[in-house]
Amino acid sequence: MTVKVAVAGATGYAGGELLRLLLAHPEIEIGALTAASSAGSPLGQHQPHVAPLAERIVAETSPETLAGHDVVFLALPHGHSAEIAAKLGPDVLVVDLGADHRLADASDWQRWYGGDHAGTWPYGLPELPGAREKLRGAARIAVPGCFPTGGSLALAPAFAERLVRPDVTVVAVTGTSGAGKSLKPHLLGSEVMGSASAYGVGGAHRHTPEFAQNLGLVAGERVTVSFTPVLAPMPRGILTTASAPLRPGADLASVRAAYEKAYDAEPFVRLLPEGSWPTTAATVGSNNVQLQVAIDEGAGRLVVVAAIDNLTKGTAGGAVQSMNIALGLPETTGLPTVGVAP
Amino acid sequence: MTVKVAVAGATGYAGGELLRLLLAHPEIEIGALTAASSAGSPLGQHQPHVAPLAERIVAETSPETLAGHDVVFLALPHGHSAEIAAKLGPDVLVVDLGADHRLADASDWQRWYGGDHAGTWPYGLPELPGAREKLRGAARIAVPGCFPTGGSLALAPAFAERLVRPDVTVVAVTGTSGAGKSLKPHLLGSEVMGSASAYGVGGAHRHTPEFAQNLGLVAGERVTVSFTPVLAPMPRGILTTASAPLRPGADLASVRAAYEKAYDAEPFVRLLPEGSWPTTAATVGSNNVQLQVAIDEGAGRLVVVAAIDNLTKGTAGGAVQSMNIALGLPETTGLPTVGVAP
Amino acid sequence: MTVKVAVAGATGYAGGELLRLLLAHPEIEIGALTAASSAGSPLGQHQPHVAPLAERIVAETSPETLAGHDVVFLALPHGHSAEIAAKLGPDVLVVDLGADHRLADASDWQRWYGGDHAGTWPYGLPELPGAREKLRGAARIAVPGCFPTGGSLALAPAFAERLVRPDVTVVAVTGTSGAGKSLKPHLLGSEVMGSASAYGVGGAHRHTPEFAQNLGLVAGERVTVSFTPVLAPMPRGILTTASAPLRPGADLASVRAAYEKAYDAEPFVRLLPEGSWPTTAATVGSNNVQLQVAIDEGAGRLVVVAAIDNLTKGTAGGAVQSMNIALGLPETTGLPTVGVAP
Amino acid sequence: MTVKVAVAGATGYAGGELLRLLLAHPEIEIGALTAASSAGSPLGQHQPHVAPLAERIVAETSPETLAGHDVVFLALPHGHSAEIAAKLGPDVLVVDLGADHRLADASDWQRWYGGDHAGTWPYGLPELPGAREKLRGAARIAVPGCFPTGGSLALAPAFAERLVRPDVTVVAVTGTSGAGKSLKPHLLGSEVMGSASAYGVGGAHRHTPEFAQNLGLVAGERVTVSFTPVLAPMPRGILTTASAPLRPGADLASVRAAYEKAYDAEPFVRLLPEGSWPTTAATVGSNNVQLQVAIDEGAGRLVVVAAIDNLTKGTAGGAVQSMNIALGLPETTGLPTVGVAP
Repeated sequence: MTVKVAVAGATGYAGGELLRLLLAHPEIEIGALTAASSAGSPLGQHQPHVAPLAERIVAETSPETLAGHDVVFLALPHGHSAEIAAKLGPDVLVVDLGADHRLADASDWQRWYGGDHAGTWPYGLPELPGAREKLRGAARIAVPGCFPTGGSLALAPAFAERLVRPDVTVVAVTGTSGAGKSLKPHLLGSEVMGSASAYGVGGAHRHTPEFAQNLGLVAGERVTVSFTPVLAPMPRGILTTASAPLRPGADLASVRAAYEKAYDAEPFVRLLPEGSWPTTAATVGSNNVQLQVAIDEGAGRLVVVAAIDNLTKGTAGGAVQSMNIALGLPETTGLPTVGVAP
Repeated sequence: MTVKVAVAGATGYAGGELLRLLLAHPEIEIGALTAASSAGSPLGQHQPHVAPLAERIVAETSPETLAGHDVVFLALPHGHSAEIAAKLGPDVLVVDLGADHRLADASDWQRWYGGDHAGTWPYGLPELPGAREKLRGAARIAVPGCFPTGGSLALAPAFAERLVRPDVTVVAVTGTSGAGKSLKPHLLGSEVMGSASAYGVGGAHRHTPEFAQNLGLVAGERVTVSFTPVLAPMPRGILTTASAPLRPGADLASVRAAYEKAYDAEPFVRLLPEGSWPTTAATVGSNNVQLQVAIDEGAGRLVVVAAIDNLTKGTAGGAVQSMNIALGLPETTGLPTVGVAP
Repeated sequence: MTVKVAVAGATGYAGGELLRLLLAHPEIEIGALTAASSAGSPLGQHQPHVAPLAERIVAETSPETLAGHDVVFLALPHGHSAEIAAKLGPDVLVVDLGADHRLADASDWQRWYGGDHAGTWPYGLPELPGAREKLRGAARIAVPGCFPTGGSLALAPAFAERLVRPDVTVVAVTGTSGAGKSLKPHLLGSEVMGSASAYGVGGAHRHTPEFAQNLGLVAGERVTVSFTPVLAPMPRGILTTASAPLRPGADLASVRAAYEKAYDAEPFVRLLPEGSWPTTAATVGSNNVQLQVAIDEGAGRLVVVAAIDNLTKGTAGGAVQSMNIALGLPETTGLPTVGVAP
Repeated sequence: MTVKVAVAGATGYAGGELLRLLLAHPEIEIGALTAASSAGSPLGQHQPHVAPLAERIVAETSPETLAGHDVVFLALPHGHSAEIAAKLGPDVLVVDLGADHRLADASDWQRWYGGDHAGTWPYGLPELPGAREKLRGAARIAVPGCFPTGGSLALAPAFAERLVRPDVTVVAVTGTSGAGKSLKPHLLGSEVMGSASAYGVGGAHRHTPEFAQNLGLVAGERVTVSFTPVLAPMPRGILTTASAPLRPGADLASVRAAYEKAYDAEPFVRLLPEGSWPTTAATVGSNNVQLQVAIDEGAGRLVVVAAIDNLTKGTAGGAVQSMNIALGLPETTGLPTVGVAP
């Protein structure tokens, strides 16, 4: 089986990571690479690490350049995918790494992003209850946001087994690549190195409703999420610290049992042995999720720590994993399970 | 006025920062520099950045070497200060940067540290209600832990004005110098760089009872604290993200008013203008605290972000500030109010 | 073809990188994993990023535990491989990542390492003139040092075409993983981050004779090398800056021609287009070498910049590449050619 | 004595460092703070670490806003200082942190910078032979480039004592703040962290003629300099590795004697004890220079390593030091001699 793939947004960080994974994927042939302002230049100027495609010329993103592929990945600013997908037709698998089709609630969309809601696509986080089934044979996939990937996997088992109350606090420490290549002063190396800073504080980050949607589906009730992202001096990785009040009777044994039940058969998610704690470095470049749980008896809370690579499992790896499912390929095909550490 | 000062633990990170500050303090004469295993070697081998004292030979820490000074700073592992202080006599100002005399509750001490409680000394966080008064003329000072410094200042005004309920979540992202110079594998540069990791999760960190003590005193009721420290790839700085459920009626105006009331006259603490957020880099090397507040309406929580330098305001700077108060010097003497950025 | 492989020194940085590569190698079955002090513990404690082998128990390094494999990789301190190799027998391919068998001159060995010279094995830098031939079918391979890998490839074509005089200056900026996991104060994260420092200055680094040997073989005359390594705050990567005086007539065209001639057919080495410069980040996790050349007319020197990942091409990747050649596999089998960036 | 000072370019990195130093200077009153595009906004938006001036409004850079001060610091892009200085009049001390007045040779200026040469001002590197005298009472000062500061001090004593031949190789590893706040893709944190890269290779960097000028003056003959800057993942610091061929008879004793003679009386320059090597971290935030020397007998070269903070001794600290001399103040007034480490 050879699957011909196009990547729109090939010059950004998500695009670069997609190309890294797709080049190692045995069933993939890489077709069009497209972008906006950098169209016409060789890919090597923008992705110097993607050596095998250095001389490929980047095309302009348009329905025409993206036509004729089996799979089209869209790594675009939000608001652009619906129109492109419509023109590509229903036989093409369209995998949207942007936000357009993640939220089910149109009013949520309007409040957080503005403009018309483009509709909801099958959600590309197969480890969530019920999600994998909707991805099989799908022609459209909405790849989750990087923060909701880590945070939802961190708490879903606890909600699935009704071990915690729906009042969640999430602080997620992220590397800078999540902010993309945009030239903003606070993203300069001089500003970032040696510094930690919070942003989108007080529920202002657009991933907040996505957390609530995912956990609410698992919990079967409305889940309140206080989410704070923190920018740390590292290029990749998200370390999520999530906590919620324990329901009566929940203890370490029942919590560990819940997580083992949820994840023991998952190829990419691993509850670490007791006493080991996740580090983002251990997941860098891999599609892995590392988890650990703790009971805070004094505060009466479950605390879960999750580590992922924001660009791999949090974006491009999750996209390839969902593509594999949609195409009927073994889910792990082409996806690294060993981190690049140290 | 010339104050003769000794520093025990002069070869560690806290000791080095103390020397940096004391060398710039106009009323200080630096006397004995002492340590344990590195006694007998020149200070420059251990503190290559303290150029003016590079040739000074480190003495062994003992009541004898520390005798004859007006002020003695103890930057030692916990469990050692009470005995030394007893031998130094009541006329010497002893400033303990360790944990021995921070906690008021002997059973807390026993639970978190083990062994006998050495007693409670005036607490060196002058910005807490009532703390400054107890420091004036004091002969003994317990310097706060670095995490409780940031976290207590982040939430004290909200509790003082009864704006939040006593159910606190704190996630604090810290640089590596807080862990000292101990040779542990996870503190190697290769492990630390490019990685974020949590530790002491689930209420296991020894600073947890100190948070609860400080906030409980301000709140006038028991405060529950879920505290998670996160190690980030930077040498210095703590970014504290603290949140608590809002009481009815609390809004951004009342919150800002509470923080302005608490801190407008403080020389080192600054509530940033709306729209600006703290960065640890902006406080590096200074005794400053940067704060910002947000109301998370969806989650019904107050979220406060605080940035400090863990070695300056969080340790050595806080110690010098409290020493100034105890000695009757202007509180800001010798303390930097400009960060070393970028 | 399934090749059964053992890794001695599986808990160190070189061992971890070997396992990452071998797990992605289609012809490899991973057998014994051995170490010294950490024998008996699960690999996951030492290599948390090598998820698929987390539960494997580390055995003790000995001829017995290493017996019964087709290939044995030795990532050991110098001085140990000869004895082990002797016991493994001539039918086993022994790939030594240590220094024992790199130098041809026994007096060089004695001067730089001390003790008896263990003999010289085929040198695992296939891109050097004549080296690939000696690796085909070899039963013993000496993997080059990480610095000589970058530095020799940086200058070999210029010497092969007699474009420069044999008076070389090399300054190589390296990440910290090259120093391994040893618990030394100057390798602590707090010391490393935000700092650059030189070491082994003045020709004191043990890789110096290896540079001279490699370049001398290509040049056909004695080559003098002034080599200075610089430790930079990054976990991986070596950026080599190498220069040598130009011979009369050498210009940019003849230099570029020499490098294109040497490397155009090489799968891992790439002379960048004019105007592009190597970055270590672009090679991280890959077996690639990025090169660029410049003529300094004012100084009359050729300046070459080379980027590699010290753990991949500089150690474990180079080892696998040479193993592929020795076993008659396609040289690129299992080796990444896309970096993990940003 | 109160000296009223204006800073043009107050929102850049050099300007921020100047303000940090000037606020700690006992004889200085800070007057106008000016900039170009950010005029009209509060300084705190651009320099969040300069807390005491956070509310000060930035004025537009013009002869009018800069008038009425005793000293005017110009931290501007090159090409702007001559005109402004002319309008300020001969009684004002103008300290130019830009390149305009560093080079003595107009044709050098034209070749490296283009446009008309604005003339040569007394050169603000007092530790060079003869430089301090020209600064006393001066009304105009050209602050050296950050690279020539470290590199010239590294080799000047060797040339002064005729210990080396005039064929110099300099590789200088620099933090990112030297590139300023300009929004260029390669300066993004995601690109910079974890990466080392060279630029201006082959004699293309504009500091090259300044090296040659400084060393040529000391040597009394033309000095050839091959200079390569390397960008490393740290905000501050320059580690210079400089080497030159030894003249017959030069050995470690004569070299150390030359450096001791040159620097023993200097308040900011320190030749480290044998066996200690400079680290940039030890100099961060201070006006110090750390030096160490080695003899490479195999290569016949002197190798010198120098560490400075590019923003302090390399820019703003050097400027204040020279201002002190020009005004007749003690040279060390207001200048930190302890680094901010770790």
